[in-house]
Amino acid sequence: MSNIIENLDKLFPESFDESQKAKAKTLFYKQLSLFAHEYYGGKMQTLPKVPIESLNWFNAWYTPGVSAISTTIRDNNDRSFQLSNRSNMVAVVSDSTRVLGDGDCTPPGGLGVMEGKALIMKYLGGIDATALCIDSRDENGEHQPDKIIDFVKMVQPSFGAVNLEDISQPNCFRVLDELREACDIPVWHDDAQGTACVTLAGVLNALKLVGKRLDEVKIVLYGSGAANCSIARLMMEDGAKPENIILFDSKGALHRNRERYKNDPRYYPQWKLCQTTNPQCIDTEEEAFKGADVLVALSKPGPDTIKPEWVSLMAEKAIVFVCANPRLHRGHRSRRLPQPGQQLRLLPLHPQRHAAGLGPQDHRRDGCLRRTRHRQLR
Amino acid sequence: MSNIIENLDKLFPESFDESQKAKAKTLFYKQLSLFAHEYYGGKMQTLPKVPIESLNWFNAWYTPGVSAISTTIRDNNDRSFQLSNRSNMVAVVSDSTRVLGDGDCTPPGGLGVMEGKALIMKYLGGIDATALCIDSRDENGEHQPDKIIDFVKMVQPSFGAVNLEDISQPNCFRVLDELREACDIPVWHDDAQGTACVTLAGVLNALKLVGKRLDEVKIVLYGSGAANCSIARLMMEDGAKPENIILFDSKGALHRNRERYKNDPRYYPQWKLCQTTNPQCIDTEEEAFKGADVLVALSKPGPDTIKPEWVSLMAEKAIVFVCANPRLHRGHRSRRLPQPGQQLRLLPLHPQRHAAGLGPQDHRRDGCLRRTRHRQLR
Repeated sequence: MSNIIENLDKLFPESFDESQKAKAKTLFYKQLSLFAHEYYGGKMQTLPKVPIESLNWFNAWYTPGVSAISTTIRDNNDRSFQLSNRSNMVAVVSDSTRVLGDGDCTPPGGLGVMEGKALIMKYLGGIDATALCIDSRDENGEHQPDKIIDFVKMVQPSFGAVNLEDISQPNCFRVLDELREACDIPVWHDDAQGTACVTLAGVLNALKLVGKRLDEVKIVLYGSGAANCSIARLMMEDGAKPENIILFDSKGALHRNRERYKNDPRYYPQWKLCQTTNPQCIDTEEEAFKGADVLVALSKPGPDTIKPEWVSLMAEKAIVFVCANPRLHRGHRSRRLPQPGQQLRLLPLHPQRHAAGLGPQDHRRDGCLRRTRHRQLR
Repeated sequence: MSNIIENLDKLFPESFDESQKAKAKTLFYKQLSLFAHEYYGGKMQTLPKVPIESLNWFNAWYTPGVSAISTTIRDNNDRSFQLSNRSNMVAVVSDSTRVLGDGDCTPPGGLGVMEGKALIMKYLGGIDATALCIDSRDENGEHQPDKIIDFVKMVQPSFGAVNLEDISQPNCFRVLDELREACDIPVWHDDAQGTACVTLAGVLNALKLVGKRLDEVKIVLYGSGAANCSIARLMMEDGAKPENIILFDSKGALHRNRERYKNDPRYYPQWKLCQTTNPQCIDTEEEAFKGADVLVALSKPGPDTIKPEWVSLMAEKAIVFVCANPRLHRGHRSRRLPQPGQQLRLLPLHPQRHAAGLGPQDHRRDGCLRRTRHRQLR
């Protein structure tokens, strides 16, 4: 099997073009995934990390010795971080309403991805994590953000941090903000802060390479979900000028005249951005892309989400990050086509990529980078 | 350290009597427990159970292959039991309100015990488990059973079973019964069903040895908490006659005139037993123990909880199980003193005890048996 996976490219007919190969690869990995998950019964386990040299050790790991752990933590809750696995333990919490590119997968439908998160956290970071795909529906079948909030507040005594995952918008905004306020432990929304953090790092690196400054560049953020809203916030905190930023959603550009966001308090992050960015109320992609230095696209996958003619309107040495969740079989690789006279280059962003000996061509191998395929147009 | 633990008895002065030795041992194990838990940072971890031969395998364990897991489970939720670790994964849920012998230890205070449960489940049973010590308090600081019920209903899509632990009564009764009704996966209350199951097995074995039948014996259940209420229920389901059973709580014997249970619907399991057992409304221990064949004591530890003179009133070949959580330093070993002409014998109950090569003297070594020290008076 190992040989097959490492030489997958060579197994397809030579007549396959890149798009066909990509589609075949995805089909292969989906079949392999089903077979392998069923064979092993998922992919994570729990295991003692302590020696049990004889059954007498149960007297220390369990009763009567463990009584000292209970009463010590009772008298000082902070001691739970040293006396249990709490400080290395992350809850990966999702309501499975926006599982990678597959949307609402029903509560247990997110288990494959969330167990995968736990696997990645251990494999790449040494962190223990457990998948908690929860049912946040009320009696009418509606997903209630309050239920996620209550759940995390209740479970926080057992964990060192909470990683929210794949919660659809607009629920994800309030869930994150309320929990960050209410919880005593860090709460992180991977789709927002995780993507924003690594994207900001990528943009800063790319700007260094092309000799531009964040507080001078013109930025287009295509897509206005959790990720790009957080990216806009982090960019502005790091010096980007709000008046140089334009966000787009599926209906057009964000600005102070967008009634949709003005009138729906659930979309408060977008409305805040409507009031601060794009003061000229630019509406069209053609106008927004003209002379733009940076594009971060986090809307939907598929060819022609970002039109080549828009990119060709951008400034010299423009930086383009197209980062929607990959759907290889829909032929997104056509987006890779360089414009005449331009050259694509992947930016090596992540120290772990180098530690793992990955070259720039291996951009999809590192789980940490699954949402961000960083490239630069020269 | 191993040498010390295996030869602990020899390290105490010869002048120590059994009670002093027991007290010293407990102090030693508490100190060792604190040191060892802090040294290792708790005792459980999460770990991949699958091969990751190269980073290309992330394409199967994670995106894009994992999409097939999400959509397959979405289309048939039952497939989550094969395609994730769900079927081998137990949630150990507690509100930490009755942690072993230490009572309410505040929500994180139960982590040492619940991580211990997860350790025992893996070590002795190969089961994966994660400790979920939850905060079930409302804004007034009151523990709300409804919050535990909501929590478990929400988390059940991620687990194969739920093991409720160390929830104080009366909350534990409704929590268990409502969840067994509402959940699609098994919900088990260790303090009730776990103890009841192993105790019934012990009683049946002991009855075989003394040549008596469950449907003929007179039974005293001392203590009317979750454990003895469940033991009474299981015994009656297995043939014991309700009119031959008498339960005691801290205020006396249970019968139809006990207003406390009649008027407080939270104690419905006790009230049900009040109406079916002890029809003669016997009130005193002296009368109840007279001629009794079986005693199961699950009230509080400490010497003289069960008075020797009561036991001496019991029938020939009486079976006595004194099973409260051990507090060795309070000298409970005095309860072991046999009556004149009687002989104590530990009953080897559990096949794992034999698999582990444990003799009958090692009765406290096996974590599975922590609550039940079974002995027989001849």
